[in-house]
Amino acid sequence: MKNGLKVAVIGGGSSYTPELIEGFIERHEEFPVQELFLVDINEGKEKLETIGELARRMIQKGGVPIHLTLTFDREEAIKGADFVITQLRIGMLEARSRDERIPLRYQCIGQETTGAGGFAKALRTIPVILDICRDIAKYAPEAFLINFTNPAGVVTEAVNKYSTVKVIGLCNLPINTRKQLAEYFNVESGEIEIEMAGINHLNWTTKIRVKNKDVTDSFLNGEADLKGFNMNNIPDLEWNRDFLRALGALPCGYHRYYYKEDEVLKHQLEQLQETGTRADEVKKVEAALFKRYQDPNLSIKPPELAQRGGAFYSEAAVNIMSSIYNNKKDIQTVNVQNNGILSCLPETASIEVNCMIDRQGAHPIQLTTKIDARIRGLLQMVKAYEELTIEAAVHGDYSMGLLALTTHPLVKSASVAEKILQDILDENKTFLPQFFSKSKTV
Amino acid sequence: MKNGLKVAVIGGGSSYTPELIEGFIERHEEFPVQELFLVDINEGKEKLETIGELARRMIQKGGVPIHLTLTFDREEAIKGADFVITQLRIGMLEARSRDERIPLRYQCIGQETTGAGGFAKALRTIPVILDICRDIAKYAPEAFLINFTNPAGVVTEAVNKYSTVKVIGLCNLPINTRKQLAEYFNVESGEIEIEMAGINHLNWTTKIRVKNKDVTDSFLNGEADLKGFNMNNIPDLEWNRDFLRALGALPCGYHRYYYKEDEVLKHQLEQLQETGTRADEVKKVEAALFKRYQDPNLSIKPPELAQRGGAFYSEAAVNIMSSIYNNKKDIQTVNVQNNGILSCLPETASIEVNCMIDRQGAHPIQLTTKIDARIRGLLQMVKAYEELTIEAAVHGDYSMGLLALTTHPLVKSASVAEKILQDILDENKTFLPQFFSKSKTV
Amino acid sequence: MKNGLKVAVIGGGSSYTPELIEGFIERHEEFPVQELFLVDINEGKEKLETIGELARRMIQKGGVPIHLTLTFDREEAIKGADFVITQLRIGMLEARSRDERIPLRYQCIGQETTGAGGFAKALRTIPVILDICRDIAKYAPEAFLINFTNPAGVVTEAVNKYSTVKVIGLCNLPINTRKQLAEYFNVESGEIEIEMAGINHLNWTTKIRVKNKDVTDSFLNGEADLKGFNMNNIPDLEWNRDFLRALGALPCGYHRYYYKEDEVLKHQLEQLQETGTRADEVKKVEAALFKRYQDPNLSIKPPELAQRGGAFYSEAAVNIMSSIYNNKKDIQTVNVQNNGILSCLPETASIEVNCMIDRQGAHPIQLTTKIDARIRGLLQMVKAYEELTIEAAVHGDYSMGLLALTTHPLVKSASVAEKILQDILDENKTFLPQFFSKSKTV
Amino acid sequence: MKNGLKVAVIGGGSSYTPELIEGFIERHEEFPVQELFLVDINEGKEKLETIGELARRMIQKGGVPIHLTLTFDREEAIKGADFVITQLRIGMLEARSRDERIPLRYQCIGQETTGAGGFAKALRTIPVILDICRDIAKYAPEAFLINFTNPAGVVTEAVNKYSTVKVIGLCNLPINTRKQLAEYFNVESGEIEIEMAGINHLNWTTKIRVKNKDVTDSFLNGEADLKGFNMNNIPDLEWNRDFLRALGALPCGYHRYYYKEDEVLKHQLEQLQETGTRADEVKKVEAALFKRYQDPNLSIKPPELAQRGGAFYSEAAVNIMSSIYNNKKDIQTVNVQNNGILSCLPETASIEVNCMIDRQGAHPIQLTTKIDARIRGLLQMVKAYEELTIEAAVHGDYSMGLLALTTHPLVKSASVAEKILQDILDENKTFLPQFFSKSKTV
Ligand SMILES: [Mn+2]
Ligand SMILES: [Mn+2]
Ligand SMILES: [Mn+2]
Ligand SMILES: [Mn+2]
Repeated sequence: MKNGLKVAVIGGGSSYTPELIEGFIERHEEFPVQELFLVDINEGKEKLETIGELARRMIQKGGVPIHLTLTFDREEAIKGADFVITQLRIGMLEARSRDERIPLRYQCIGQETTGAGGFAKALRTIPVILDICRDIAKYAPEAFLINFTNPAGVVTEAVNKYSTVKVIGLCNLPINTRKQLAEYFNVESGEIEIEMAGINHLNWTTKIRVKNKDVTDSFLNGEADLKGFNMNNIPDLEWNRDFLRALGALPCGYHRYYYKEDEVLKHQLEQLQETGTRADEVKKVEAALFKRYQDPNLSIKPPELAQRGGAFYSEAAVNIMSSIYNNKKDIQTVNVQNNGILSCLPETASIEVNCMIDRQGAHPIQLTTKIDARIRGLLQMVKAYEELTIEAAVHGDYSMGLLALTTHPLVKSASVAEKILQDILDENKTFLPQFFSKSKTV
Repeated sequence: MKNGLKVAVIGGGSSYTPELIEGFIERHEEFPVQELFLVDINEGKEKLETIGELARRMIQKGGVPIHLTLTFDREEAIKGADFVITQLRIGMLEARSRDERIPLRYQCIGQETTGAGGFAKALRTIPVILDICRDIAKYAPEAFLINFTNPAGVVTEAVNKYSTVKVIGLCNLPINTRKQLAEYFNVESGEIEIEMAGINHLNWTTKIRVKNKDVTDSFLNGEADLKGFNMNNIPDLEWNRDFLRALGALPCGYHRYYYKEDEVLKHQLEQLQETGTRADEVKKVEAALFKRYQDPNLSIKPPELAQRGGAFYSEAAVNIMSSIYNNKKDIQTVNVQNNGILSCLPETASIEVNCMIDRQGAHPIQLTTKIDARIRGLLQMVKAYEELTIEAAVHGDYSMGLLALTTHPLVKSASVAEKILQDILDENKTFLPQFFSKSKTV
Repeated sequence: MKNGLKVAVIGGGSSYTPELIEGFIERHEEFPVQELFLVDINEGKEKLETIGELARRMIQKGGVPIHLTLTFDREEAIKGADFVITQLRIGMLEARSRDERIPLRYQCIGQETTGAGGFAKALRTIPVILDICRDIAKYAPEAFLINFTNPAGVVTEAVNKYSTVKVIGLCNLPINTRKQLAEYFNVESGEIEIEMAGINHLNWTTKIRVKNKDVTDSFLNGEADLKGFNMNNIPDLEWNRDFLRALGALPCGYHRYYYKEDEVLKHQLEQLQETGTRADEVKKVEAALFKRYQDPNLSIKPPELAQRGGAFYSEAAVNIMSSIYNNKKDIQTVNVQNNGILSCLPETASIEVNCMIDRQGAHPIQLTTKIDARIRGLLQMVKAYEELTIEAAVHGDYSMGLLALTTHPLVKSASVAEKILQDILDENKTFLPQFFSKSKTV
Repeated sequence: MKNGLKVAVIGGGSSYTPELIEGFIERHEEFPVQELFLVDINEGKEKLETIGELARRMIQKGGVPIHLTLTFDREEAIKGADFVITQLRIGMLEARSRDERIPLRYQCIGQETTGAGGFAKALRTIPVILDICRDIAKYAPEAFLINFTNPAGVVTEAVNKYSTVKVIGLCNLPINTRKQLAEYFNVESGEIEIEMAGINHLNWTTKIRVKNKDVTDSFLNGEADLKGFNMNNIPDLEWNRDFLRALGALPCGYHRYYYKEDEVLKHQLEQLQETGTRADEVKKVEAALFKRYQDPNLSIKPPELAQRGGAFYSEAAVNIMSSIYNNKKDIQTVNVQNNGILSCLPETASIEVNCMIDRQGAHPIQLTTKIDARIRGLLQMVKAYEELTIEAAVHGDYSMGLLALTTHPLVKSASVAEKILQDILDENKTFLPQFFSKSKTV
């Protein structure tokens, strides 16, 4: 890595980009981005320009020498980049809204990244990411792909299986868990150490240490309520203490979809009647946000962005890139290839665990807790779903898709899987050429 | 094994026993039982006597030199036995009826061996079987335990983990599958060869050969309906051909609980209103059967027994014992320890696969088909449930029980698991001393 | 498999062929060979004709309807064959003689199939076998390749890794061990059951049962000498009883090269001075044999063939082919792919263990004894050598060859490995095009 | 860990102790030892006193508040310790001298930690270390055992298998390799990053980065000689470049015993005639050293200690303890339990790999290079030897000992193993009670 750091952001027109820009400005000293490319597709021209102008104002106000380029030419953006960040959304919020509605039609949980919704998103997303990888392999073979695009674990595994690009999958859940624990224990975030085990959006915190003291058991056995140990798009249903004790680990927010399936489903069906899906809400938030972004006097990340979700997204992103850039050898929880760390999962699975980050990338650290049957069952079943989903997405394989959905714990039966799959294919025709064109991608 | 074969049947008063007696008579030449002990508990005195008298009449009519003893003294029955058969039902059909009702209360499938019902049965059964094993280890250490008691796979694994007794778990599903395929293809049963992979009551037929020809694909892709590929206590819902093709294997009857969860649940809830649970039906069948058995003129297995289920139970039992006795080295599908045959499951898991049977027992044969993610996900999740269930049953461990139920794909959430577990404990107090007494077993 | 059985023997001019012919004649009823092709290369014309004429006389005398064809056209021989037998020797006994001399030059054991000698043989043989496999895949894709060519385990693994042909590796050591045990215990061969674990020519007998009684421990602890538990080309050094007891298994004859390395080396160096290598002896035996074969009055396998080695070669060969042909499902010890049976070796390794033989081939049976560190260390090291050897042989890779030899326990050091490898390459130029031509095979 | 750090050094009378004292003084700020206990046995009273007095002078001169206690009461020393360091030598240099002579008697390499010599040392050492562990478990259960005692990998594995004490095995080879590479590349030691894979004294450097640049290939393919890439007790035989290239990794010094067995053996046999074994040399060095230590004017570590070996011993020791104490999360190469990091070795094996060091101990990091057959064979065989050695040492099991030696690549045959084992037992009677007393340990 030479000194003149180049970063390409694919999906640069995303409402999250100001978050990222803020991070690049605030931590410019340790992570001196010189060339920043925001790329998007033609359909996103307007949004890209709004974001681009805001970014320019932010950079100027920040007084840092970042040279910003807006472009629709992916090749130009990637060429010689040190880091490529993918934060795209194929089909935009319209597609997400469909993803969330289809499963609910069949009394199954509808969610952007989990269950049948995440499956549909994976089908749309994986071929595009693999296409980007072909460009990276060609124009910036040494670059790291930092993938935020959901389902981030599935995408990471697909890249590892079908590309030679160095990829790290990133989610803000681990950093949020640390922050939430810091708040709970009323200490600095740096005084919290946790061990996480699992896969993206299905991740158990198996050890918690506060100021070097192991508090895992006392925390799990505690009495205080656990409001807030969650992501802000998931109904904040309380964990039962008997269950936490039995589990011996803190589940992540997304675990509510599995461990509280009935309640969440009830909640979603009610919400659907009243206010529509989460995507519908988000659309309104986004519309307001972009309006706000257009204000020529705005030259900071506006506080309203926090409502959008994605808390600490920027911090997570700059953390990983700066640790690589500076060969920091610190510990971060990211998505990487398994290779024996979780012996109950295939060697080629993507997993989300504590990693040591250095110039060569993210290196998982051996777990200190044994993943036993309490965690293993659900983990293996969801991973099998993910493997099948990748095969379906890459090869446009209907059978694999049907089995992927049938295997998912949140899809009630093979018959329901069939109906959901049909709806997904029908409502995503333009985004799933691999299922409809004669000449399949691979 | 000396020539004077001794067999002890624990739970001798079962309505299935005449089935077994018939087998011992018909195949006396190849499997010359000399001493046959039917053991039961005092509460089953009346049934044991009814069965015992019928058995005597059958033996006499059969003209074979089997010496029959009825007893309540387990030690006497086991001492020096070559085979010990366990076919007991702790709590009798009353308990089964409760097992089937409790889950339905919470919109979960209620079934004797699968899901929360099978869990309750495992809690009641495992400690008793391990107690029997202590007797076998002491009084007949060379004997084989042939376990029919459900959940047969879980019981087999518990014995392998917590006892030194040589155990083989037996189910009539594999033999029925062969018979059903023979009927479908209109050939002799001996002309059907199948490869089965999985665990008890969750077993996929991954290869079918008819007269030495591999017909797996053509069978799965076929058009004819698959009525009858089922056990007679499971709603006979048709498999969708797209799904079979995608799966690449023939699921077993019990798979309907998973792959058709919504339909089966609906069916069960309706049935519950109309006729009660399966246990309630069986109670009536049994009452009629025992009435029939009492007829002093009856000296054969009455045809009515067929309605009770357990088709080919006797054939399966004599097959395995005779192959051991005669060192036959033939192939049968039974439950044994894994040790690397299904690499996606723990070494110590019980699995149900094709085995070569010789004097030393049942030896699994390497599979010729790779178990991929299509099968792996569900299999691993249910196996994790089984492991947790064994720990709960052996140690009377509430937490493990809660996690076992939460892990089971047919239990909707941790909250539901908690309610079901509470009901199971409340309604089985007398049968679950390990959860209620101070001094725990093991 | 249709009824008109076709068998192709590649290397038909081998002195062993009459052994095979005898088997085809004697067991024609159960294994009715209709078309028998003996193929050889032009250089072996004379020998092929001698063998062919003897075979014809034997068939005629035997009175069986085997139609015999001699040919140099491999394609013709393979086309539509049910079984292809490979028993070729690249470079003939001259090459073997060099293989045995080179290592001795550097104070390392020189042997045809083990150590550096076997390495050289593998380099010459593997590309030819893979070439034959390309023909089989094209002209007889359903045929079984029954490979006798040494090193048989390495060749089997190479075929499994670099070809789609169904291969079974065959060695007469397992059948000889059974015969030797039968003689030792003075029982019929069928009354001996053994469990073998390991790889070709490095195979431990871990269980011995005589008339259904486990005699393993008493045999290992016995006092009687073990002369004759050996192959007739290996110095018959006695096993120390303390060592056998400690090992807990009966080593095979070839184990003497490892466990008695110093004594065997001393023996070989002396022998080299006196009578030359084993190859030199064999050359004389062969010359006499072919002279004998030419006798137009000879129409049976002459007893002198026994001195050549290869005892029960024919029985082993017909056993495996007949069990496949007749779907016998009996137990034989052959070389197949591992897939988890020996968990200490790679999934793709060839192993030599008890298999159930049916129409689909050879299916390993789960071992009843755990392979612990006592056996594991040597086994893993030799298997690593084999893997490296295959890579060297297939790719003509000098580095892999150097590491293969360095890894072999019978090669004293990396420096010695280098010298031996150089000598092997120098003395085998015409047989190792993969190392010398520009365009490498793969 | 409270602030008043307590360290107990068992084998405090060792000539290496001044090395350690120097480290405690120089790095007192970051690792503020408050209580330092040097323990030894009565037989070592004189040496302990000499060392103790020198230590006091050094501490005084250093001006640090370390409170030093000399004692023969192990319990007192261990009670409440934060770190227990074991650097003992059962039987002292006399025993080492015998260990080195016995194998040479049978033409096998004689070495303190490798081969039959290391085996004898393990037999003497393991029971004593396990006895110390019983004290630690009782009197300082939270303490880390930092074990320097050789064979350090075997001892670490024995502690992990037979004790609950937290142990880290330490060797100065990894730190020396870094220093040697720094010198070779003429950079600071901190500019060298290496990945090491293997086990103690059989460790391959699979990746070398200098100033963030991967130079592994160019280094291995280089022309410069590699004198000095060695430990100073091993004959400095040059690595052949073809071999290094083929191996794809830098072997450690001890690899010369395997890869250059013939040359090293020749060297040792010559040396034995001329100057005796390494132990004999060391005895002279030690005598001179202790004489020097007695000088009341000496209050620093004398430069002569460097000749003794053990370079950077102190740095390695303080590094690991300080990183634990300060929760540094830096990378060090130490001996820990495997658990899937090297998938070719058992889960319970000790391995020597890069670890992240924090307050909880040493956590192995996933390797970035795949350990293939080139490394695997030797590694697995030596590990099998180690496992057998532990069983022999713990249980006083002759058979396991015989197999351990037979399995070791440097022992020529089972017959030689038997002779060596007999000699070891004969010459170590007083140190091997587990083999001679009726009541076995454990
Ligand atoms: Mn996320
Ligand atoms: Mn059953
Ligand atoms: Mn052979
Ligand atoms: Mn060392």
